[in-house]
Amino acid sequence: MFLRAKFLQLEADKPIVILNREDAEEMGVKPLERVELDFKDKKIIAIVNIAGRIVREGDIGLYEEIQESLDVKPNEKIRVETTNPPKSLDFIKKKLVGQTLKPKEIYTIVKDTVNRRLSHIELTAFVTSLYNKGMTMGETASLSKAMARTGQTLKLRTKAIYDKHSIGGCPGDKTSILVVPVVAAAGLTIPKTSSRAITSPAGSADRFECIAPVDLTLEEVRRVVNKTNGCLVWGGSVDLAPADDIFIQIEYLLSIDPFLLPSVMSKKKAVNAKYVVIDMPTGRETKVSTNEEFENLANQFIQLGKKLGIKVNCVSTFAEQPIGYSVGPILEAREALDTLVKGRGSEDLIDKVTTLAGVLLEFGGAKNGKKAAIELLNSGKAYKKLKEIIEAQGGNPDVKPEDLCPGEKIAEFKSKKSGKVLWISNKCIDMVAREAGAPRDKGAGVYFRKKLGDKVRRGETLFEIYSEKSSKFKRAIELVHKIDIMGIGKERGMMLEKLPAVEEEKRYFILER
Amino acid sequence: MFLRAKFLQLEADKPIVILNREDAEEMGVKPLERVELDFKDKKIIAIVNIAGRIVREGDIGLYEEIQESLDVKPNEKIRVETTNPPKSLDFIKKKLVGQTLKPKEIYTIVKDTVNRRLSHIELTAFVTSLYNKGMTMGETASLSKAMARTGQTLKLRTKAIYDKHSIGGCPGDKTSILVVPVVAAAGLTIPKTSSRAITSPAGSADRFECIAPVDLTLEEVRRVVNKTNGCLVWGGSVDLAPADDIFIQIEYLLSIDPFLLPSVMSKKKAVNAKYVVIDMPTGRETKVSTNEEFENLANQFIQLGKKLGIKVNCVSTFAEQPIGYSVGPILEAREALDTLVKGRGSEDLIDKVTTLAGVLLEFGGAKNGKKAAIELLNSGKAYKKLKEIIEAQGGNPDVKPEDLCPGEKIAEFKSKKSGKVLWISNKCIDMVAREAGAPRDKGAGVYFRKKLGDKVRRGETLFEIYSEKSSKFKRAIELVHKIDIMGIGKERGMMLEKLPAVEEEKRYFILER
Repeated sequence: MFLRAKFLQLEADKPIVILNREDAEEMGVKPLERVELDFKDKKIIAIVNIAGRIVREGDIGLYEEIQESLDVKPNEKIRVETTNPPKSLDFIKKKLVGQTLKPKEIYTIVKDTVNRRLSHIELTAFVTSLYNKGMTMGETASLSKAMARTGQTLKLRTKAIYDKHSIGGCPGDKTSILVVPVVAAAGLTIPKTSSRAITSPAGSADRFECIAPVDLTLEEVRRVVNKTNGCLVWGGSVDLAPADDIFIQIEYLLSIDPFLLPSVMSKKKAVNAKYVVIDMPTGRETKVSTNEEFENLANQFIQLGKKLGIKVNCVSTFAEQPIGYSVGPILEAREALDTLVKGRGSEDLIDKVTTLAGVLLEFGGAKNGKKAAIELLNSGKAYKKLKEIIEAQGGNPDVKPEDLCPGEKIAEFKSKKSGKVLWISNKCIDMVAREAGAPRDKGAGVYFRKKLGDKVRRGETLFEIYSEKSSKFKRAIELVHKIDIMGIGKERGMMLEKLPAVEEEKRYFILER
Repeated sequence: MFLRAKFLQLEADKPIVILNREDAEEMGVKPLERVELDFKDKKIIAIVNIAGRIVREGDIGLYEEIQESLDVKPNEKIRVETTNPPKSLDFIKKKLVGQTLKPKEIYTIVKDTVNRRLSHIELTAFVTSLYNKGMTMGETASLSKAMARTGQTLKLRTKAIYDKHSIGGCPGDKTSILVVPVVAAAGLTIPKTSSRAITSPAGSADRFECIAPVDLTLEEVRRVVNKTNGCLVWGGSVDLAPADDIFIQIEYLLSIDPFLLPSVMSKKKAVNAKYVVIDMPTGRETKVSTNEEFENLANQFIQLGKKLGIKVNCVSTFAEQPIGYSVGPILEAREALDTLVKGRGSEDLIDKVTTLAGVLLEFGGAKNGKKAAIELLNSGKAYKKLKEIIEAQGGNPDVKPEDLCPGEKIAEFKSKKSGKVLWISNKCIDMVAREAGAPRDKGAGVYFRKKLGDKVRRGETLFEIYSEKSSKFKRAIELVHKIDIMGIGKERGMMLEKLPAVEEEKRYFILER
């Protein structure tokens, strides 16, 4: 059937055309099935939407992407024929009914995902099937490889690539900003890519962006790492394992996370990592809440690593309160920089940084990795290395902690009684920091004056809220009064804690990886 | 946040708005999350799409439906705020993780489905979860009731409502066109609604539309049935259980059918049926291929009926060849009408019609339902009743079989050898009839001159193909030469049958209900 091109002033993330209902019925094509467009020497397969009025019989509505790809002018005639769904749909259906997929089948699904050939319905069927039917370790490895192969890969001079990852869930976790310079200062190569926040108030990329540019091209990353041994960049701009972002959109909306393992490991594979330390924050409000869960997930990462040629160590870290004192991009960047400048800082932050860096240093041959990491931090060598990295990424190496200014709207919250900090709710901190504007407003966040076990006198400040905008500031303060961020009491008292009194209790979902 | 209304020349089946990326990030709303629009005294919740260029910062792109519902003019300012996803998403997530849903939760999901509040991702998650996790009989009953309650219901003078349904899968099944007048002629009330073809060459509505109008309003249906005891109308125009069509779109694209039971029974509930006979065509290429499968599915329908206050009988019918001789809307309508006019016709068609009608007549008190049905057919009473129904629906009661003219492009296919018809492939018949243009071209189809067990001499005609259009006619003929519709051979010979030599073997999926 020949149809006249009609231009729609619309962009889509996949090839979509709009047919008139009559033409669609004549062709026997239903909504979300596919047609092949044939114009001069160009062929495109597009997903069909159907309209009754907007597109007249004999016309075909084209989104901008297709107008450009076909290089067609309005009213030119395009040959339009029905076509079969992509092969990958057959494989998705195989998984839907519980069959195990072959490596080539998984690769085909991922390739079609990245090339935006699959509709939301098809992608959701894949994500929910993986969630419901699970994957064998072989499938998980194939998926990780496919996700890496369908994106860019980082090729460096050295083959010994080190990397660090956190599966997320603990607020204020600025660890990466310190681990990278420590490890790089030891002469090991650590090309760290990070994500932006999805459900949390700050991702590592959001944090480091307050210190230096993070949206580098892959070629720039290569240059920075070859020069300094390290980098701290946003994964999104280097297009590593791009299928992940597409799957994440669906996982996020459904609050499920079946891609955790391939998501993490495909990105490690894409930078050709050989040694990886994975931080698993463990606590009541994180993904891993018991030692058993930690061991189970850690073993899966280790096994998957073996299949991918990556040596993996996993570390369970205490996650019942924020790391350090700050939560929110600028506040965290400031704390991280301050710790590097002085070579000392919050005890838990230092301990976590040197433990994780220590694992990588031991992979690199150090006898006592933790001790070596402490030495690199205390001596200022790590700070020197950070300055090199900042400069190589296009930032100002002389940036000082005091140059990093959080939002000017500040509210202090004081304790109504004396006692000790008995608990802190990460979930509530996340909510308040986001309400205050984080991660979009980089200066928004929460700063703690007291942490677990600290003694508190009535009237002493427990924490402060920072915000850049009045409306968000107001809403964050209102939220603090509705929920319980911290519990203060006598350690041996029999006080029954109030649970965080969120208006409506919902499953708390963390997608950060 | 206030945004300027920008009109998009676009229609959608659900409320969608397009935000600029910057505004979306400022609001903290991600693609496919929701915003509440507030304009004068009107509030609407819409699903968010995000654009980089099409919609500028400070603008909001509105589809036609929202322009009309809000009654807003271009450039007027609309208040836009993020809002939580609908409650139903929580319940979908519950099913996704395998929990049993409460009646009210199911109702909420179905209501939001019908009100187009759910995105494709959310709906697909629900459909695939039902498929993967299954439903208890209680959930199935709740779902059926919810699907009925969220649409129109038919209220008639009498409480004793009879109905017939086929789960489909057998080509040429014009049984309903005969069952309805037989049952109605016996004085029982049978308000039959039918679907159009989804994956087959003809649905009952497509067939009867060749004889009389089928797209009646519910009020018209009520009038027809109160007058004649019966009707044969398209379910789509009376809006019974409208959620079904929305679920079907997804089931169809994924080739899964988890809604079979509630889909059928919600529509029976919506017409307040008390007695239902369900035809289950049984054969190698249908949904039910063994007696065990029949018993299993039949028991589920019977149990579900009990929970809904509907007496159900299920009949397993032979489905290894078409019913009667014709396949395709006009050809089938002609055969059905001819059989009613003459009171006789194809043996299998008569047997099937009187068996199914007989079950309903026995529900109504007849001692030997089948015998009574044969009598009603032979005596011309059923034909007289059909004429009443045709007239009441707005058709010409004097229409004759010869008035129903199939496509004028006809190709005969002759046997290359002598023997008997050993097998017929329904799947291949469906493919050829659809390739010839059915159901869109009502005159397209296949007419059989020989059926199972018939003796065939070399050179005798086996079947004919009818088409309305040259291009489709040509493609159908080409297809016949590629596949095997019938097998001719010696009954006691040891010929190994060629399997239908379709180019690529795919799972054959029938969605007809």
